Amino acid sequence: MKGIILFGHGARSAEYAQPFERIRDAMMARQPDALIELGFLELTRPSLDESIACLVSRGVRRISVVPIFIGPGRHVLKDLPQLAANAMDRFPDLAITLAPPVGESVAVVDAMARFALDA
Amino acid sequence: MKGIILFGHGARSAEYAQPFERIRDAMMARQPDALIELGFLELTRPSLDESIACLVSRGVRRISVVPIFIGPGRHVLKDLPQLAANAMDRFPDLAITLAPPVGESVAVVDAMARFALDA
Repeated sequence: MKGIILFGHGARSAEYAQPFERIRDAMMARQPDALIELGFLELTRPSLDESIACLVSRGVRRISVVPIFIGPGRHVLKDLPQLAANAMDRFPDLAITLAPPVGESVAVVDAMARFALDA
Repeated sequence: MKGIILFGHGARSAEYAQPFERIRDAMMARQPDALIELGFLELTRPSLDESIACLVSRGVRRISVVPIFIGPGRHVLKDLPQLAANAMDRFPDLAITLAPPVGESVAVVDAMARFALDA
């Protein structure tokens, strides 16, 4: 069984997670049986580790982690691969694949461009 | 004259700015006469301050800053308003308005959802 984790940075403010929840909701609307969790690097719960453990406990053995980051900075290039490697050490029958950050999507870039011109 | 600054976090890696440049290119394709700069909080150049000064030197007196951030964390809620206020102190005839972060856009959320399902 396969799961998807939307990986975000995290922040102190309670409202921070709302856009991530809206992304998940939009995914569920398109694919109601998808197993989708949010997972944050710091401050916001659940953490990436918590969401991985949650999915594993539900029988998931393949997880695609999608970085909800614009550009390939340290969190995407170093922190995330390290967290994924550690999780695969903890769960030897788990396979985690890392998607490119959403800023690599032409459609995302185009939607941001339209939003910025209208702002 | 009005300008737009795409405000990003910044990172050490040289490739980090590329998605931001693609957003700017997509905006220029739609509106070739728009005055659009990138401006980063840290590490990546140009800084927000540098881009504000650049636009002011070209005669711009109204700047819309669009946070290329997913959620409303500290950088959007505190750092950016502070930087904008300081800039308006330095340039008394300059008006800066702050757009919501791109994660507030329904079209952006939907494009991210589609990307994450395909990843």
